[in-house]
Amino acid sequence: MFLVKFAISLPESRIQEPVTSNQQPAMTRHQLVEQIHKKRSYLCVGLDTDITKIPKHLLSEPDPVFSFNKAIIDATKDLCVSYKINTAFYEALGVKGWEAMEKTVHYIGDEHFKIADAKRGDIGNTSDQYAKAFFETLPFDAITVAPYMGSDSVKPFLQHKGKWAIVLGLTSNKGAIDFELLHSEGEFIYEKVLQTASLWGTTENLMFVIGATQANAFADIRKLTPHHFYLVPGVGAQGGSLKEISEQAMIKDCGILVNLSRAIIYASDGEDFAEKARIVAKEYQEEMQEYMK
Amino acid sequence: MFLVKFAISLPESRIQEPVTSNQQPAMTRHQLVEQIHKKRSYLCVGLDTDITKIPKHLLSEPDPVFSFNKAIIDATKDLCVSYKINTAFYEALGVKGWEAMEKTVHYIGDEHFKIADAKRGDIGNTSDQYAKAFFETLPFDAITVAPYMGSDSVKPFLQHKGKWAIVLGLTSNKGAIDFELLHSEGEFIYEKVLQTASLWGTTENLMFVIGATQANAFADIRKLTPHHFYLVPGVGAQGGSLKEISEQAMIKDCGILVNLSRAIIYASDGEDFAEKARIVAKEYQEEMQEYMK
Repeated sequence: MFLVKFAISLPESRIQEPVTSNQQPAMTRHQLVEQIHKKRSYLCVGLDTDITKIPKHLLSEPDPVFSFNKAIIDATKDLCVSYKINTAFYEALGVKGWEAMEKTVHYIGDEHFKIADAKRGDIGNTSDQYAKAFFETLPFDAITVAPYMGSDSVKPFLQHKGKWAIVLGLTSNKGAIDFELLHSEGEFIYEKVLQTASLWGTTENLMFVIGATQANAFADIRKLTPHHFYLVPGVGAQGGSLKEISEQAMIKDCGILVNLSRAIIYASDGEDFAEKARIVAKEYQEEMQEYMK
Repeated sequence: MFLVKFAISLPESRIQEPVTSNQQPAMTRHQLVEQIHKKRSYLCVGLDTDITKIPKHLLSEPDPVFSFNKAIIDATKDLCVSYKINTAFYEALGVKGWEAMEKTVHYIGDEHFKIADAKRGDIGNTSDQYAKAFFETLPFDAITVAPYMGSDSVKPFLQHKGKWAIVLGLTSNKGAIDFELLHSEGEFIYEKVLQTASLWGTTENLMFVIGATQANAFADIRKLTPHHFYLVPGVGAQGGSLKEISEQAMIKDCGILVNLSRAIIYASDGEDFAEKARIVAKEYQEEMQEYMK
């Protein structure tokens, strides 16, 4: 039933003329919400795969990082609607890491919302190239984008039809206080970012990163951006509460993807790592199912 | 003679305890200034190598991007003190692009200041991985960093002894107006960034990106950060004036690296591309030599 309401409440599309390109097909908001509904889950599993932390027995594999990811994906795919690949962990391994990322995003397939957590953003002609990297060369649905450089650093990502930009709003780390929480004309800088960036795209191609450690700000953030999806990191290792952010930020068609990385993928460092990852993912999925009622 | 004055004017080191790591050796400020002095140049050549814009005859090479970069480097290395690799153009090609980047940064060698123009920045444990990618796995001297997420997103880059973080200050693009030029407590946000970020590092491991299109702001920026080096993009295709920014921003030991990308590397799309690139680079070097007098 909430799907029907959602379709009515969306503002009219403001998508710019799409880039004609070699881009891969992407998941729409409608399809994402269908997956959430079907799986009773708004879980995103973060593949922050650190080769120094994965079980030692995998190190003899030809591509240990991909072998780890494959096992985690197989063990969790019915419990989550999204996977988030943190590009830093792959780049740290150089060419081999980029290969593991490529294999992983293809292995995930089309039933999950695939996020490149890359925090990119540069002048227009350069952001164009980043969009090409993650939306054409690789088949991601979405990419996280840093807003500091403003409109022309973000818009190129929104010009790829159906693809998503996930703009940093209020992040989960302690450094959020340095600039995001400065005041400007009676508002926080991150509020300016939410308001301004929301004019660049629509609720069907733009999301925001809102950290789970910022639960007391979620009610105000929802007033500013009532219909956008949020990608919410910071539950688990960083200490955010799934209950609090679900109560504060969930809307009719869910509107949140909650990311868990370390708590799931490093649930065990033994041969049972995938099995243990599934147990933790299942606990989160069951908790989410309660909040969706 | 300016080298002597420079040595006296530097504030005491505030470098944090360095990470013990596999990192590659890096160029110090003293060594960079020596190169500037020796070559009478503060030119940085930007390798924004776009496979759709390089001369067609190179496309039959096994690695066209590396072949192009190699020829540009051979033709310009005595005229510039730095090369800046714009990671977006390499990532757009996937694994092959990352390979071309790796070969290029090794080919440049140790006599040039090697900048990864990557605009990275994320929570601490993730910025750690980006630092590893560009300072250990690859032998860059410096990386450009986006400041939005604050202290713990930048500090990991500064913890690699001798390596540099180049933090975005006031950028050259039109989107700079959206957030960088918002007011907060009587200052611009970018001024807050300069002041706050300058406390995280020293004038020997931290630079700022200041766009050449912002020449009228350079005098004020110099007051805030009198001893830092600036990486200055925006001359050439973006319209900034080399003369203006040299007059406004140069300090005793130079203190600026001026980047030219498209104007040099795409000076010709024929078989003479490297020769023409050298002619343009030489013009800029000769102009710089005048301003250094």
